[in-house]
Amino acid sequence: MDSATMAAMAIEQGFDLYAITFDYGQRHRLELDSARSVAKQLGVKEHRCITLDLRQFGGSSLTSDDSVPVGRTPDQMNDGIPSTYVPARNTIFLSFAVAWAELLGAEDIFIGVNSLDHAGYPDCRPEYIEAYEKMARLATKSGVEGNDLHLRTPLIRMTKTQIVARGLELGIDFALTNTCYDPAPSGDACGTCDACVLRQQAFLDNAMQDPRPYASV
Amino acid sequence: MDSATMAAMAIEQGFDLYAITFDYGQRHRLELDSARSVAKQLGVKEHRCITLDLRQFGGSSLTSDDSVPVGRTPDQMNDGIPSTYVPARNTIFLSFAVAWAELLGAEDIFIGVNSLDHAGYPDCRPEYIEAYEKMARLATKSGVEGNDLHLRTPLIRMTKTQIVARGLELGIDFALTNTCYDPAPSGDACGTCDACVLRQQAFLDNAMQDPRPYASV
Repeated sequence: MDSATMAAMAIEQGFDLYAITFDYGQRHRLELDSARSVAKQLGVKEHRCITLDLRQFGGSSLTSDDSVPVGRTPDQMNDGIPSTYVPARNTIFLSFAVAWAELLGAEDIFIGVNSLDHAGYPDCRPEYIEAYEKMARLATKSGVEGNDLHLRTPLIRMTKTQIVARGLELGIDFALTNTCYDPAPSGDACGTCDACVLRQQAFLDNAMQDPRPYASV
Repeated sequence: MDSATMAAMAIEQGFDLYAITFDYGQRHRLELDSARSVAKQLGVKEHRCITLDLRQFGGSSLTSDDSVPVGRTPDQMNDGIPSTYVPARNTIFLSFAVAWAELLGAEDIFIGVNSLDHAGYPDCRPEYIEAYEKMARLATKSGVEGNDLHLRTPLIRMTKTQIVARGLELGIDFALTNTCYDPAPSGDACGTCDACVLRQQAFLDNAMQDPRPYASV
């Protein structure tokens, strides 16, 4: 939902998109197919899927057999860093983006982090993004040669409700997107994990029916 | 040579070592076996090899079929960033180290960069390392909770000659180490790539015979 809206915003701003998806051992591998469908719908120039084994490190309910939290209200979610946090995930993802950007000669890297609804994830905070950008400018040959790298985070101060509204305005087909941390083999979203609860609330706030299929409980 | 000396220095300082080697599609994959031998000799607590496909990005003579530069003097090597530069390599490597460190509860990450002999690599410079450390402290749950992460670069101001001297003092068996960018299938070092030239000079400066086998030219 976030990545799709962000990608549509980047295209609206006139950027050509080179998209990366990571197959990192997440339990919601359905998002790999979703990413392909969204990338196709948006007409990205190129879409790469990079395989990484973050399961070997564990440490997260998204990359292990531990169950993800379910049935929590947004208030309960704000109580600390959730078990769905994957150690250094955005730091790893961005490092591949920096490599590819250098090879493409790209000066802009977009990432769909947002800090309001996910106060719990350290690597979604503005201060982290700023520090990453500073580091990345020093990391590369193109940086040394004067390439002016920017990390772009158009969603960082947006709520999920605003993200859905913006995505709808830009014609995103949210039926293609996956948000659920633990979808059923059929592809149905669970409806009860933190990500599903926040997503459903965002559609409700927009007085919209979420087009994504949910498991009937 | 650098990693082995650095690891021995860390052990001398009292650290328990958890070592990571990256199989990233480098042409000198011999270094994977070398890393295993050195890790075993040093008695590291755990050694992981992480597989990443950096060949898909290309952009370097180390990860493509382009030949590496040979027969250059150290002065010639200082002329800009060499073709052996791999885009964002240390940024990618360190991101996995940050993830593992968080899971281990480790506060110290060692990397054997040195900025004197390799003036050409942007991601070996002190300003890069400083910026990376700042970013990494903001990136993780343990950082938010007060873990005091340090990037340790004991070799950063050392010359290759000093690194060999220090490694010899600490009992490193340099016959186990690989430096060559393009070793022969037999394992013999080429003797003419930048890395071999700098290594041989460092042993000469120490009035030592390099125990590493070289191809007879």
